[in-house]
Amino acid sequence: MASDDTSVAASITLIRRELDALITSALDGNPAALDAFATALGDADRVFVHGAGRSGLALEMTAMRLMHLGFTVHVVGDVTTPAITSGDVLLTASGSGTTGGVVRAAQSAVDAGASVAAITTATESPLAKLAAHVLVLPAADKLDRSGSASAQYAGGLFEQAVVLVGDALFHSLWKQSGATADDIWPRHANLE
Amino acid sequence: MASDDTSVAASITLIRRELDALITSALDGNPAALDAFATALGDADRVFVHGAGRSGLALEMTAMRLMHLGFTVHVVGDVTTPAITSGDVLLTASGSGTTGGVVRAAQSAVDAGASVAAITTATESPLAKLAAHVLVLPAADKLDRSGSASAQYAGGLFEQAVVLVGDALFHSLWKQSGATADDIWPRHANLE
Amino acid sequence: MASDDTSVAASITLIRRELDALITSALDGNPAALDAFATALGDADRVFVHGAGRSGLALEMTAMRLMHLGFTVHVVGDVTTPAITSGDVLLTASGSGTTGGVVRAAQSAVDAGASVAAITTATESPLAKLAAHVLVLPAADKLDRSGSASAQYAGGLFEQAVVLVGDALFHSLWKQSGATADDIWPRHANLE
Amino acid sequence: MASDDTSVAASITLIRRELDALITSALDGNPAALDAFATALGDADRVFVHGAGRSGLALEMTAMRLMHLGFTVHVVGDVTTPAITSGDVLLTASGSGTTGGVVRAAQSAVDAGASVAAITTATESPLAKLAAHVLVLPAADKLDRSGSASAQYAGGLFEQAVVLVGDALFHSLWKQSGATADDIWPRHANLE
Repeated sequence: MASDDTSVAASITLIRRELDALITSALDGNPAALDAFATALGDADRVFVHGAGRSGLALEMTAMRLMHLGFTVHVVGDVTTPAITSGDVLLTASGSGTTGGVVRAAQSAVDAGASVAAITTATESPLAKLAAHVLVLPAADKLDRSGSASAQYAGGLFEQAVVLVGDALFHSLWKQSGATADDIWPRHANLE
Repeated sequence: MASDDTSVAASITLIRRELDALITSALDGNPAALDAFATALGDADRVFVHGAGRSGLALEMTAMRLMHLGFTVHVVGDVTTPAITSGDVLLTASGSGTTGGVVRAAQSAVDAGASVAAITTATESPLAKLAAHVLVLPAADKLDRSGSASAQYAGGLFEQAVVLVGDALFHSLWKQSGATADDIWPRHANLE
Repeated sequence: MASDDTSVAASITLIRRELDALITSALDGNPAALDAFATALGDADRVFVHGAGRSGLALEMTAMRLMHLGFTVHVVGDVTTPAITSGDVLLTASGSGTTGGVVRAAQSAVDAGASVAAITTATESPLAKLAAHVLVLPAADKLDRSGSASAQYAGGLFEQAVVLVGDALFHSLWKQSGATADDIWPRHANLE
Repeated sequence: MASDDTSVAASITLIRRELDALITSALDGNPAALDAFATALGDADRVFVHGAGRSGLALEMTAMRLMHLGFTVHVVGDVTTPAITSGDVLLTASGSGTTGGVVRAAQSAVDAGASVAAITTATESPLAKLAAHVLVLPAADKLDRSGSASAQYAGGLFEQAVVLVGDALFHSLWKQSGATADDIWPRHANLE
């Protein structure tokens, strides 16, 4: 933030501006690749999601929506998550594409015959190389603390974009399904 | 603990003695009811588990085993847990049978047409009254801090017994299934 | 979405447009109230966060950042979360301000002498009335499935905004603290 | 189980018999080492717990009790868990002592200057070699599916023992603290 303004309003404005630029940049890429990414999720037998820290939370937001849409979805690390296998897709996100646990999970998924769909800033990363489908977000990754790509703290912009992209993937899959909001609503958890 | 002995060995001995007495007491009850409880889980379309605090963790241990056995299992509160409905069973545990969140979940499950299977010390409790299947563990509940029923801290004995009973339920269902250990193993999570 | 366009690109564009309008609207309110909300978090002895479903995940993203900043932070429901008490702040989010578990937690927090800081669309809701600090996001809440306030599915816009506002609160508190990114980095989890 | 009896009662009896034998065996070891293990936890600045699957859940039960006792406790992987450092103890459990994620976490803890306290069946394992304190439970580990050491499924006996040993560690530390049950009770989570 070039300005000395540390108000919340200035911070929101900064975030909005960075996100707008990032989304514009992502859309300038290959829109068909975005749709292919969504189709990969839609065609999966089951979707497993996994990310470290805040990227993982962002993907859990997506996972809940895919469950609402009727998908069979599992969060890696959850007690009831079974083995991944052929026909399944592992949806991951890592800004740098080098996060140890994420790369190991991606390798294990590939070894088990599953496909990997990765959201990352780094097309040449170990994660991207393991992935059948890559969605590129040209944001600063978490390990870049120089402030040159984003004035936000480590990976914040990337993680915000994962939330929005995850919701866009859901929105497309929902609209393609032809279901109404009232059709989906009965799947919402009813025990809390 | 009547003794002044605060060693770990003395503590383990105390826990073992209390657990032995509790299990003997539980088995003196109605063994057929235990088997009916297991059958209710085995016949469910899906099993949902829910408990507060350490009782919830104990049931998550059971949930993981039921997943290994091939059941469709959900932990209430997990991101990917859908709505419960007719044909499903909610497996719960509450020492007092009065834990607010557990009783509310049980009521919601019944309202949704699902069945409740409850592990509790209190057969006349609100939870037990909502349950189609009750497994009684005559342990001190968490709210009893008098030390008369157990020298352990609040509910510890009950929670330990829920772990062991959950594993016994799994063991019976496993042996009845005819599956070998090697049959089950491939379901274990393979991404961590 | 008025359009027939179900592409991911169109969905991202929709989300961006809705978020831009929401943020503009929120900033047109009372910027000083936003700063007072941040100050309430900054002055708390400890911050507890709680929300249902995706709102809860959004607040967990904020919680992680506050931990990075050196705050003592707890997620309600986590195993190691202790009792809330006087001097603590419960940070909550509920679009409708009526979510049962959230309102009960807020009431319990107030009863325990803690303060409530609530993000909501509904200033006249039970949650807002319990809160010492309210941050209003004029988004459609989850229970509104009419599509009039947002073309996104149930509460999606609100939940996205909670992510961005949470990060803006963090960004302001960070910049006010005078810490550099390199000062904060050593607090990141190092066991995974 | 030598018997053909697949009843729940027979399963509980099996579990009790195996646990009794295991505990007897563990106590025949070095009682002073058990107390040294408890002291290591009691003397730590902060306790971090980590285990895979059901071992992790067992340790979370212990973590909650240590929080009740006033310890600063973190579960590895929780959103608010900070970096481990000198003066902290990582409490882990792995039957085989070879679980990848657990060994990596132990190595990272040692690298950060923290100590490792490990519960395991395998004194010569990579985990045990990293640990300053080892508590040996001579149970079958998860990878042994031969049924020779335990008739229970993969690691079940070990995981049950981790629950009981964790509660014994808590019980000793509690009794040594001089606190009454009523002293501890106010720390219990009050927002659910």
